[in-house]
Amino acid sequence: MTHRTGTADGQPLSESNAASPQHPTDAILRQLAAVLESRKGADPQHSYVARLYAKGLDAILKKVGEEATETILAAKEGNPEHLVYETADLWFHSLVMLAHQGLSPDAVLDELARRFGVSGLVEKASRTTAADT
Amino acid sequence: MTHRTGTADGQPLSESNAASPQHPTDAILRQLAAVLESRKGADPQHSYVARLYAKGLDAILKKVGEEATETILAAKEGNPEHLVYETADLWFHSLVMLAHQGLSPDAVLDELARRFGVSGLVEKASRTTAADT
Amino acid sequence: MTHRTGTADGQPLSESNAASPQHPTDAILRQLAAVLESRKGADPQHSYVARLYAKGLDAILKKVGEEATETILAAKEGNPEHLVYETADLWFHSLVMLAHQGLSPDAVLDELARRFGVSGLVEKASRTTAADT
Amino acid sequence: MTHRTGTADGQPLSESNAASPQHPTDAILRQLAAVLESRKGADPQHSYVARLYAKGLDAILKKVGEEATETILAAKEGNPEHLVYETADLWFHSLVMLAHQGLSPDAVLDELARRFGVSGLVEKASRTTAADT
Repeated sequence: MTHRTGTADGQPLSESNAASPQHPTDAILRQLAAVLESRKGADPQHSYVARLYAKGLDAILKKVGEEATETILAAKEGNPEHLVYETADLWFHSLVMLAHQGLSPDAVLDELARRFGVSGLVEKASRTTAADT
Repeated sequence: MTHRTGTADGQPLSESNAASPQHPTDAILRQLAAVLESRKGADPQHSYVARLYAKGLDAILKKVGEEATETILAAKEGNPEHLVYETADLWFHSLVMLAHQGLSPDAVLDELARRFGVSGLVEKASRTTAADT
Repeated sequence: MTHRTGTADGQPLSESNAASPQHPTDAILRQLAAVLESRKGADPQHSYVARLYAKGLDAILKKVGEEATETILAAKEGNPEHLVYETADLWFHSLVMLAHQGLSPDAVLDELARRFGVSGLVEKASRTTAADT
Repeated sequence: MTHRTGTADGQPLSESNAASPQHPTDAILRQLAAVLESRKGADPQHSYVARLYAKGLDAILKKVGEEATETILAAKEGNPEHLVYETADLWFHSLVMLAHQGLSPDAVLDELARRFGVSGLVEKASRTTAADT
């Protein structure tokens, strides 16, 4: 994905996904996962994400590889805005990959929480941090 | 990073970073960023993250590239737990890269929120989603 | 580069680069390097390689990263013709990178020869294989 | 592979692989392929290549991905010797990948020759460059 596009998906958002001030920033990955899930029924002609799903796993993984390279090059360039932009592309395409494989970003966040002893899902907060899930 | 290690950082967590049930899962990236910030003063001999900082940007970017490849291979393998594990490694090392460059994951989440019209930081919720930050 | 294109460069070859039966296959990298050198004066509108040069080093390196990912995916797919095709793309774009940096494939071949004790350039054949160039 | 090691394989070379002044540099890939073929019967404890074969395709592909990243970073660094070194690592590991898949570098060189109209294998020199192999 180049550095110029303003939107990553041409599909209009349903009301339920639109900006809602009551949701804190850090819920964004979960909201984005819901958008990606909704794209599974979208028309590939009108949605970039539906197009990726239609092309299949290898096409999605090529994007993950491409965006990793672009992130590395942006970091070397030293322009913070460009680095943020490319890292967003990398995380976005890894979310598409997870959605395509039927996985939620919560699984990845839980794995990170487990490793670093930071809090996981509220409903799982009582389990020990040494648990191997 | 191989598939076997249980912890990504040998450094014990300070009390303030320990699991706190009042934080929902989705605040994990922000908590993890705080852990990574605290590692800037840690001893490279005792902290994997401090060791990466000491080696410098290129060493961190090599890890981003490696973990992208391992994520791609795990996705092809089709084992969901392995894919979650490697995606966690990829996100983790991109968080280390952001921290090393003085950037917060909030900047990346805001960029994703902006693109997809999902809600950004509460304190920034009044700005238009078309704003170019 | 996708798997479908038949030619990598729209620019017609000069007579001196055309197929010459007296050159064995293994001289191909050197011949290709000569073609790439000649493209430095070509019109970006008519030559893919001249277009890459015009875009600059980062654009070339993005292609190296992309083709590495495509090679990895082709190897997982298990189709030998596809793997050969993508590896050719990877080597080709690393040759473009070398040419852009003013380097010859001979330098890389010499490094490989040095490491493995296989023969290097005829004119350098008398140096020891332990020499550090 | 780091920038410091002097040899890529601990296994001593047989006489037939040792430096032979009558072979021009450009036969190096083919000689190296013969070395890699001979490593299929080597002890993983004594040969880096035999160790890679024993670990399997994914381990080899991880190295291809790693070396692509290291090549990109070396190109950004601007040190020609380092770039030659890392490109050699990238080509070397793609040769290991080809050998592991039962493929010869000649197949890749032929594909490059076909695309660019430079000469292919002597024994195939009469075929048209438009042939789709």
